[in-house]
Amino acid sequence: MSSTPRIPRDRDDDYSEQAAQQRRDFVAEQTGTRLTHAAHYDFDPQATRGNIEHFTGVIQVPLGIAGPLLVNGEHAQGQFFVPMATAEGTLVASYNRGMRLTREAGGVQVTVADDAMQRSPVFTFASAREARDFGVWIETQMDSIRETAQATTRIGQLRNIEHYAVSRFLYLRFNYTTGDAAGQNMCGKATHAACQWILAHTPYPVLRFSLSGNMDTDKKPSLLNMLHTRGKRVIAECTVPNTLLERIMGVNAQTLYERRIMSMSGAFLAGSLNNGAHAANGITATFIATGQDVANVAESCVGLAVGELTEQGDYYFSITLPSLIVASYGGGTGLPGQRQCLEMMDCYGAGKARKLTEIIAATVLSGELSLAAAVANGDWVTSHEQYGRNR
Amino acid sequence: MSSTPRIPRDRDDDYSEQAAQQRRDFVAEQTGTRLTHAAHYDFDPQATRGNIEHFTGVIQVPLGIAGPLLVNGEHAQGQFFVPMATAEGTLVASYNRGMRLTREAGGVQVTVADDAMQRSPVFTFASAREARDFGVWIETQMDSIRETAQATTRIGQLRNIEHYAVSRFLYLRFNYTTGDAAGQNMCGKATHAACQWILAHTPYPVLRFSLSGNMDTDKKPSLLNMLHTRGKRVIAECTVPNTLLERIMGVNAQTLYERRIMSMSGAFLAGSLNNGAHAANGITATFIATGQDVANVAESCVGLAVGELTEQGDYYFSITLPSLIVASYGGGTGLPGQRQCLEMMDCYGAGKARKLTEIIAATVLSGELSLAAAVANGDWVTSHEQYGRNR
Amino acid sequence: MSSTPRIPRDRDDDYSEQAAQQRRDFVAEQTGTRLTHAAHYDFDPQATRGNIEHFTGVIQVPLGIAGPLLVNGEHAQGQFFVPMATAEGTLVASYNRGMRLTREAGGVQVTVADDAMQRSPVFTFASAREARDFGVWIETQMDSIRETAQATTRIGQLRNIEHYAVSRFLYLRFNYTTGDAAGQNMCGKATHAACQWILAHTPYPVLRFSLSGNMDTDKKPSLLNMLHTRGKRVIAECTVPNTLLERIMGVNAQTLYERRIMSMSGAFLAGSLNNGAHAANGITATFIATGQDVANVAESCVGLAVGELTEQGDYYFSITLPSLIVASYGGGTGLPGQRQCLEMMDCYGAGKARKLTEIIAATVLSGELSLAAAVANGDWVTSHEQYGRNR
Amino acid sequence: MSSTPRIPRDRDDDYSEQAAQQRRDFVAEQTGTRLTHAAHYDFDPQATRGNIEHFTGVIQVPLGIAGPLLVNGEHAQGQFFVPMATAEGTLVASYNRGMRLTREAGGVQVTVADDAMQRSPVFTFASAREARDFGVWIETQMDSIRETAQATTRIGQLRNIEHYAVSRFLYLRFNYTTGDAAGQNMCGKATHAACQWILAHTPYPVLRFSLSGNMDTDKKPSLLNMLHTRGKRVIAECTVPNTLLERIMGVNAQTLYERRIMSMSGAFLAGSLNNGAHAANGITATFIATGQDVANVAESCVGLAVGELTEQGDYYFSITLPSLIVASYGGGTGLPGQRQCLEMMDCYGAGKARKLTEIIAATVLSGELSLAAAVANGDWVTSHEQYGRNR
Repeated sequence: MSSTPRIPRDRDDDYSEQAAQQRRDFVAEQTGTRLTHAAHYDFDPQATRGNIEHFTGVIQVPLGIAGPLLVNGEHAQGQFFVPMATAEGTLVASYNRGMRLTREAGGVQVTVADDAMQRSPVFTFASAREARDFGVWIETQMDSIRETAQATTRIGQLRNIEHYAVSRFLYLRFNYTTGDAAGQNMCGKATHAACQWILAHTPYPVLRFSLSGNMDTDKKPSLLNMLHTRGKRVIAECTVPNTLLERIMGVNAQTLYERRIMSMSGAFLAGSLNNGAHAANGITATFIATGQDVANVAESCVGLAVGELTEQGDYYFSITLPSLIVASYGGGTGLPGQRQCLEMMDCYGAGKARKLTEIIAATVLSGELSLAAAVANGDWVTSHEQYGRNR
Repeated sequence: MSSTPRIPRDRDDDYSEQAAQQRRDFVAEQTGTRLTHAAHYDFDPQATRGNIEHFTGVIQVPLGIAGPLLVNGEHAQGQFFVPMATAEGTLVASYNRGMRLTREAGGVQVTVADDAMQRSPVFTFASAREARDFGVWIETQMDSIRETAQATTRIGQLRNIEHYAVSRFLYLRFNYTTGDAAGQNMCGKATHAACQWILAHTPYPVLRFSLSGNMDTDKKPSLLNMLHTRGKRVIAECTVPNTLLERIMGVNAQTLYERRIMSMSGAFLAGSLNNGAHAANGITATFIATGQDVANVAESCVGLAVGELTEQGDYYFSITLPSLIVASYGGGTGLPGQRQCLEMMDCYGAGKARKLTEIIAATVLSGELSLAAAVANGDWVTSHEQYGRNR
Repeated sequence: MSSTPRIPRDRDDDYSEQAAQQRRDFVAEQTGTRLTHAAHYDFDPQATRGNIEHFTGVIQVPLGIAGPLLVNGEHAQGQFFVPMATAEGTLVASYNRGMRLTREAGGVQVTVADDAMQRSPVFTFASAREARDFGVWIETQMDSIRETAQATTRIGQLRNIEHYAVSRFLYLRFNYTTGDAAGQNMCGKATHAACQWILAHTPYPVLRFSLSGNMDTDKKPSLLNMLHTRGKRVIAECTVPNTLLERIMGVNAQTLYERRIMSMSGAFLAGSLNNGAHAANGITATFIATGQDVANVAESCVGLAVGELTEQGDYYFSITLPSLIVASYGGGTGLPGQRQCLEMMDCYGAGKARKLTEIIAATVLSGELSLAAAVANGDWVTSHEQYGRNR
Repeated sequence: MSSTPRIPRDRDDDYSEQAAQQRRDFVAEQTGTRLTHAAHYDFDPQATRGNIEHFTGVIQVPLGIAGPLLVNGEHAQGQFFVPMATAEGTLVASYNRGMRLTREAGGVQVTVADDAMQRSPVFTFASAREARDFGVWIETQMDSIRETAQATTRIGQLRNIEHYAVSRFLYLRFNYTTGDAAGQNMCGKATHAACQWILAHTPYPVLRFSLSGNMDTDKKPSLLNMLHTRGKRVIAECTVPNTLLERIMGVNAQTLYERRIMSMSGAFLAGSLNNGAHAANGITATFIATGQDVANVAESCVGLAVGELTEQGDYYFSITLPSLIVASYGGGTGLPGQRQCLEMMDCYGAGKARKLTEIIAATVLSGELSLAAAVANGDWVTSHEQYGRNR
């Protein structure tokens, strides 16, 4: 194509069905493909303002439910049915099986251990010495910095700032609590304001400034996030009696523990940021269903799984998700179908982000045990034969 | 809740609307929430067999389009409109802006450098010495192992097996080509068969065997995948004239290059598996739109961005995505709306996986430049103010 | 050998030459090798008490000197001759050449950005929730913990405690300043005392306790140490005029910068904890010469090198050594020959650790530039031909 | 200081005692410090040609011996006394105690699983596509490349070349076997020759070339070396009966295993390249004693420790050292005292590198068990009180 066709209304702010139809017509004209299924949505497209540009319709992602999941959290307590949106066969069945196991084992205990969202600007100076001294100065200005940052937001609180000195750069990592929103934009706005204040007041001339120096690390998996939390740091744990493992999963605790050692060693050797099984599956499916920012799977999939054989011969298993980004409002959580999925767990709106976090972590743990058992007893391949699309 | 309610038809294979309705009714009864929006789908739910269990309906994810994206690939050539499904405001606008930039710069050149899918079993022996000798023996049995593996699949080809010796474990990493499918299940099935053959024939008694020892590393970001490819290893690159940067983005090449150094250093220090900006955003949005296994964002988000100032003062930028998992059939690609999104780029079915890979990589590169420029010139926060849901 | 011969005086505390002679005789008798060269030392072996057990003599490591090195530090200022002990040909010559370059460029500016030594115990509880609550309690007990820790040492100061929650474990990372000693044992002793106090007072029953949970990370290279400093975090930097590079090294700034990008990308891909050239060479040689704990090369070799082309076309280069462990007294610094090597730089005893740190960092930087230039202009292999033991 | 004093004979090749004396006099004159102890050596300084420049004397590093160490290797079999040069109190005593434990447990089984030394050049092209095609071309030219490389060395064999594609760079990792030498220079020379051939014959114009692109990764710890071996990949293992642990170390197997899990998790979280205890200690002390290139501790300290509780309740422990660089000739191995230390283990000269490797690995394993036990039963701090220089 030599000319450059232009998407209709690509600069304006029109979220009407007419605009969407124009765009679909344009696609049809340009590519020969009519996006008929995209047109099949049942809400006022104005609802997507702030969620998307060039609104053209919807993608229909299959939804299944799993559970009940028995959660013993501080915010989520009792049995929950968990909505999971995915196109990967066996996923829902596998999580559902794991939920049965953990339920019969007395439920999954879940603890939110930390909670922080970041923006990490970087400042460059004439020399490393100035960068260091600037860092010392920053420490003396925390009140003004906090005040300036927090003036931009009703909810966000600046908790602390980490410093990382490299070359003549100083990376600052601003840690905020952001209530029940995921909070990336809130942090960006607050840190932007704080940095404007810093740039105006610093006695050390700033050679270069960037609002992000890649130590956030936004939309990227990193050891730093594993160490210092991004979003929620949540730990799910369960001690599963050996008899239950044998009865429901056809494996015993000794076998799971032995494989855990092999998997921990393999993950260490692989330079993996998750030494568990498949946390990303459960996280992605619940994220799509509940309107989370699904690209945060990049950070949220990071995890540390620990399995221990108890002295009674049972299996203690935990998974720590140190950078699970969960919101109960804001972003896509308010889209009509997504909101219903939140509501079915009583997780929509203010005060619910930690509850949802606990449910997702408990879901992940259940899925870890289910897959570990399937691998151990050889069901893994055969169940994919049964449910999936092997060829 | 003391009793344990059971999801209707949780073991059977019923993909009818009646079954879905029963499940939605069950949710309503158990939780008080009616999943009315989930019920609004426009295809025969039988189509989801193999994609989900406990089919209950759909999640409607907003769809936008960006483009035209000018791609100079080996499979994708010319201008494309790219479907992106997301709930994150500014995402589509930002990618769209980047596409304008790369289009005016002459397009994005894309190269698929490697292509492999894995399953990585682990074998434990009485001693490390036996493990090592077993590895030597495996090398002598490659013909039989290959034959056995390939007998399970029409498409998969066993390319090679990497060996990793640790303790008395030997991890084998089976590398397959899997045509236009993502191929994880195909590899699982083939490797399972190969390992059964190995277990039956090895002269070295195997103490323990696991079909996965976490060196795949399936659904997890890892340096190993960055080194040795998982799915497609694809490299997108573009040299953007400084004048164009200034005109369209309001930044110059020198600024982008300086910030690239800061970002590369920050990512190195953070132990990040991606030293670029936000590849996960573009990948996730195209993955949802085109029916990819979205949980593979865990692996696919890994990347290496390189920016260089050319002697002419222009900006050469590339992004390498070493573990991008892309399919043009299988999994969710056949779901009706997702298939239309593939078709609008002529990327559905046999022979199209590399084409789609090239388009996604070019999309990612466009988004990297767009965000880098926005951060550099301060637009970042203000554009989120305009398009997003800041609070 | 079926019987088990026993090293003479292996439990007692005899540092006499007679005991050493007995041990050498024993080696001769057991192995047929007389350690005649080991016997050739010129100090009272009592001096090694606290440095070694089973004292048998000495290893004579070749010593060269390099310099003058021009340092612009806060503690080291002016020209220094640097003692380097090594058996690797070309090493001293290469550092010496680099020192000439940095000297003519105006010297190396060095900044100690941080200073901390650690011991990192781990506590296990019945559940992750108790582990978290224990962490909150620790925060409230800082005064008592600090007092208890500091009661064990004249010099060490407990600066802060980092918390890392994983599973039902809580890792605490105690950060101390340790004056001019390396301080590992000081920190071990203080943390041991603090933990005894904690164990006696905690309201949360501790299931298991270990004085080290591998988050120190003592004698091991780690990203955590790169992020949070172990020993000294020191940054050396130098802007080298392009004309000087061309005249002395036969390369230009553009070439060095281009290769730096390739080396930064390679190191990122390799999962390396140092993206520079060969810091370990300069560190090891000065460590042996000055009586440092040479095994700390494991941590000290970690580094981040940043090279930038200035707008004038010169080469700004820096190396950050975030976990360089340096002492000016204690350990081997008091051994007679080692002490002389410290004294020749006026670096022995109280108040000299930072000065020595600055000299070592400036040495490392000089060597980085020298090797980078040698690789760039092809001298590297030929100089090893000339000075080394190629075969 | 405005004038620049110059080290005597800094360009010539004089290894006489007269030249050394001149340099010591120069140091005295410049710094006021007489290096009297450095002058005390007992060999002809000509012996250091190829090991050092500006030979000025020696550093006397204390030497102790530990053992007997019972090794069940393929090259080392029986009991050995191990020379260890260090200034760190308790080190020799701790290794000695561990050797008693492993000896009574029946000895340490050691296996060299792989053996390779590298040089890793990088080539830059106009585009990633050319880089990839260049890689394909390289594969077709392996015979010529191997022939050219091997023409430069009597001993080195080019085993294979790994390819890593990033941006428009292609990193090649040349793997050699180097007999009983460490072989870095041998590999550098051979790879240099091969690359000259490649540059002369490639149909793809090379924009930039560097003999090292930091994927060797020489003198730096890296995950790549952990995965793909640098020097020797050696695995030491031992099953220690619980009764023996209790009798000699005062701990039981269950305790060690529990702490291993905590240490494995801690190391994973810390981004450490060694999840064991203190391998660097044993490696450094034996490296100094036996004339190894001590700076290789940077690579050699990397390790993976695995502990498992056997069904009998005993403790299986192994340590894998994937990048242990060991030579039995070349470099400093021929220095008189160092050679005697090799000879006392019958490890000097041709055919002995693997034997020495096995002894060092067995030493390391013994030290790991000793320290783990000391930490577990609280001896750690008290023994440093007894032997070391705590303050």
